[in-house]
Amino acid sequence: MPEKLTPTKRILMGPGPSDVHPEVLKAMASPLMGHLDPEFVQIMDKVKAMVQETLLTKNQLTFVVSAPGSAGMETCLVNLLEPGDECIICINGVFGGRMADIAERCGATVHKVNSEWGKVIEPSQIKSALGKCPHPKLVALVHAETSTGALQPLEEISDIVHNAGALLVVDAVTSYCGVPLKIDEWNIDAVYSGSQKCLSAPPGLSPVSFSNNAVKALESRKTKVQSWFLDLSLVKNYWSGGKRAYHHTAPVSALFALYESLRLVLEEGLEKRWARHREVHQYLANKLEPMGFRFLVEQKHRLPNLNTMFLPTGVDEAKIRSALLQQYNIEVGGGLGDFAGKLWRIGIMGESCTHNHVNMLAGALEELIR
Amino acid sequence: MPEKLTPTKRILMGPGPSDVHPEVLKAMASPLMGHLDPEFVQIMDKVKAMVQETLLTKNQLTFVVSAPGSAGMETCLVNLLEPGDECIICINGVFGGRMADIAERCGATVHKVNSEWGKVIEPSQIKSALGKCPHPKLVALVHAETSTGALQPLEEISDIVHNAGALLVVDAVTSYCGVPLKIDEWNIDAVYSGSQKCLSAPPGLSPVSFSNNAVKALESRKTKVQSWFLDLSLVKNYWSGGKRAYHHTAPVSALFALYESLRLVLEEGLEKRWARHREVHQYLANKLEPMGFRFLVEQKHRLPNLNTMFLPTGVDEAKIRSALLQQYNIEVGGGLGDFAGKLWRIGIMGESCTHNHVNMLAGALEELIR
Repeated sequence: MPEKLTPTKRILMGPGPSDVHPEVLKAMASPLMGHLDPEFVQIMDKVKAMVQETLLTKNQLTFVVSAPGSAGMETCLVNLLEPGDECIICINGVFGGRMADIAERCGATVHKVNSEWGKVIEPSQIKSALGKCPHPKLVALVHAETSTGALQPLEEISDIVHNAGALLVVDAVTSYCGVPLKIDEWNIDAVYSGSQKCLSAPPGLSPVSFSNNAVKALESRKTKVQSWFLDLSLVKNYWSGGKRAYHHTAPVSALFALYESLRLVLEEGLEKRWARHREVHQYLANKLEPMGFRFLVEQKHRLPNLNTMFLPTGVDEAKIRSALLQQYNIEVGGGLGDFAGKLWRIGIMGESCTHNHVNMLAGALEELIR
Repeated sequence: MPEKLTPTKRILMGPGPSDVHPEVLKAMASPLMGHLDPEFVQIMDKVKAMVQETLLTKNQLTFVVSAPGSAGMETCLVNLLEPGDECIICINGVFGGRMADIAERCGATVHKVNSEWGKVIEPSQIKSALGKCPHPKLVALVHAETSTGALQPLEEISDIVHNAGALLVVDAVTSYCGVPLKIDEWNIDAVYSGSQKCLSAPPGLSPVSFSNNAVKALESRKTKVQSWFLDLSLVKNYWSGGKRAYHHTAPVSALFALYESLRLVLEEGLEKRWARHREVHQYLANKLEPMGFRFLVEQKHRLPNLNTMFLPTGVDEAKIRSALLQQYNIEVGGGLGDFAGKLWRIGIMGESCTHNHVNMLAGALEELIR
């Protein structure tokens, strides 16, 4: 018989999940409510309104996928792509590669635009790809590559994509609520995020939003969406307030938590929250660079909330990372793909984005690396 | 600015979610842990072992889908079916119909076996369907139809299906941990369930298990699984303990809660838990039948934990159901499909399966219906 669960209290400074506010944990522990309860329908309406507000969008088709960010990614692609479609997918890390994999599973022809990991995608690369594929259904790229720590500028690319008549799909899993992300102003047609990064809710949910042009694309599909669970022609009726139709059973507790995390973001204010992430990022750099840590990404494209840093020369990253966890209960992330064993991914996201967090990490590292 | 979340405390006696034990809510509210943390990997290993134990299976490919039961359904079908396959899907309620929809989206040819809602599928119907489709890849049916309250006998059908060389896929969303469900003894090849029924964890997770024969079918696929998120060739490496490979980010808090709910099931014991559901079902019948409530399903196929009952003549079901919720905070479910407006679905599942729950409901109804 397994023993009662007593998880060790960690300090979460990896690529997510981040630390969660006590009010959010308290909301998770509220007694449940039926997912068709009129009071719960109102809570979902408020969650939708707060997702719109935090994404800076008026998009009517804004909702939360009842599954993690990867399912949000799949939601965007399976609904917008069907067999025979062409698309351009930009790859400069793990998550661009994942988008290409999903798009191929949708039966689309995928044109890949590659940049070195740690670099961003240049507008000229999109132009050149459009030269070989003049009428793609969509162009997809990652706003904040969690595998590399690069922050992708989107505005110029958005113009290029729309001038070609394509839809712009953006992965905002790690950028949402941590750095500026302006869905309507930047004309993003489909965006998905995750709950466990700068929003600081538990993992398991993916906020998603579709523009009116993206909705038109949904409405002119010739085939059924290959996934029943992610089919927006069904899901949208589950997020339509008073007129809602049963689809699946929403994860009630997780939505309670999301509600509270969104409320806390709005209480702080988006601008202040973005500024906090920038400021604590600088504080982290000031502490770690003198110890010999070096950033992978050049300064102007650095994601403030996810810091990819090479360790000081001669330091065994796996050994120190494990000691940080075992002795100090601090989690940082290792590298993915080509960066495995070479760098760390240090997250300062949401509730984990404080001077205290940086000081706990820096203090522990001074002991471990000396 | 939305107000702080203060959900009303309900008594959950609908088709799910059911009431959740305080220890499970407490686990949900534990501070988070990274999903790649060695301690969390051990927790996932223990969850897997407890799912095996509660499903009475030794299946190695046993895991939890990071999304609700409907995604568990889709997991089973998208992994086992590919374009060109033939399958037999049995429909005697909403969830059989959903399986057929998903199977068609997989590109399979679907042969439907229909029974009237509230009745079970007869072995002779499967034999007759096999006459028209002698070599289906799989036969799928629902063990406990949440829309009708019918409990499907499986053993004889399992023999027929396996003699035809097909795999048996079973929806056990509402039966798991509430009525006998014996995966290995009954030779079930793929089974999915949900967290929010007789397990009494919050909604959002789907325990799934595949037999060795089902694994062979996965290994001999000719095409990639159409869903990346649900592709077991990837998901299985995320549930492989020490050797785990990153796939998506597991819903850490929800798995903490699942751990505690599974532990409580094993602490009570499966046999005792099944007996409790039978006994409280009889207690409910003894209270409600004298008030004029009538069961839809004939006695021998009645699901004890989900009771579909017509209301006494002349009673306005929607009005009384709403009064139950508003005045007594008790949720019962309305009818689905053809039964909308005609009957109630009264759940006595897991933590909601007590004499006290029945007495709260019966007492309130005596006031409301008099």
